[in-house]
Amino acid sequence: MTTDLAWPIALTIGVDGVMSGATGAYDKLLGDLDGVYLNDGAFAEAVAAQGHDRLAYHVDEHRYGSDPGALIVGTSTLLPGRVGDEFAMTRGHLHARADRAELYHCLSGRGVMLMDTVDGRSQAVPMTPGVAVHVPGHWVHRTVNVGDEPFVTLFCYAADAGQDYDLISDAGGMSQLVVTDGADGWITRPNPRHTGYGSAA
Amino acid sequence: MTTDLAWPIALTIGVDGVMSGATGAYDKLLGDLDGVYLNDGAFAEAVAAQGHDRLAYHVDEHRYGSDPGALIVGTSTLLPGRVGDEFAMTRGHLHARADRAELYHCLSGRGVMLMDTVDGRSQAVPMTPGVAVHVPGHWVHRTVNVGDEPFVTLFCYAADAGQDYDLISDAGGMSQLVVTDGADGWITRPNPRHTGYGSAA
Repeated sequence: MTTDLAWPIALTIGVDGVMSGATGAYDKLLGDLDGVYLNDGAFAEAVAAQGHDRLAYHVDEHRYGSDPGALIVGTSTLLPGRVGDEFAMTRGHLHARADRAELYHCLSGRGVMLMDTVDGRSQAVPMTPGVAVHVPGHWVHRTVNVGDEPFVTLFCYAADAGQDYDLISDAGGMSQLVVTDGADGWITRPNPRHTGYGSAA
Repeated sequence: MTTDLAWPIALTIGVDGVMSGATGAYDKLLGDLDGVYLNDGAFAEAVAAQGHDRLAYHVDEHRYGSDPGALIVGTSTLLPGRVGDEFAMTRGHLHARADRAELYHCLSGRGVMLMDTVDGRSQAVPMTPGVAVHVPGHWVHRTVNVGDEPFVTLFCYAADAGQDYDLISDAGGMSQLVVTDGADGWITRPNPRHTGYGSAA
């Protein structure tokens, strides 16, 4: 107990992902995602056509501090699109403290939570408004927008979790791709570049 | 990394608080809330009129386990009503590990997150759909239904947090009451029974 306790506040969270009261935010631009998609030619074409600085996704977040029991609460807004036959996605991560779980609750749009374990399991869960995915510890995860509108999720995880992004790029990407089924839907397909996660945690 | 990792699942969360995939649930009945409200006579009358077993609130929750980084995700559905001039409320708690924060995100209804610190601060935050309250560690908290419909929140907190319920009853209740303003709204009023939280964490 100290006198510098955080004072609780309300966060107003729109289904468009706009969060009042955020203490931090960042944008990820299309050009930042070099190497994330399998088809390098299609990626280069997309950057040429849409620009390096075209927004790919935006994150708002709120944290009080980094005390052991602190949480980070926020919204992720992932714009729609495709690069080749792959749907727009976030970089994805494993938590640096790999046992930290994370909640994602879909507020709008249509997406997929794509998850891998480092020992070779994979899972893809469709998300629409009202669907939450409780990502257990030890699962690499990313969101994918398989719809035509922004895909917005509310997330909550331990402030001490951290993110390991290199694990995915070092593995040649996640084990599965989320691609168009040629009609209005999506399917997963093994990623031919994926080398396994090696001896990672 | 073990072979008994949890397998991620989707949770379907209705604005009515119904959650598919829950691993646990409990009901709190009106008669269980003896001593929670200031007006003992009004409480006895409410139990006589509505029955001991009238549902007061229902909680659905999902957890994978109790590993250090695990979260508990769930919904709380608090029925409307009054006991005397106090609005229907949950028992409230401080986390047994007091530094554990908690997210509450309003899905439907109209409520208040009522919060105290053990050193005498108090805060009441109105909640309507789309409003989240990120309760920092070290804040005693309860929800109050100030509307006419069920007040439903999605919550997320660390699985190792635990709940200390006795702290509030030992203090004669929280420091403030949430009571009718005589019209369609609510106000807070100091709880004359509240003795302070003593030397609690």
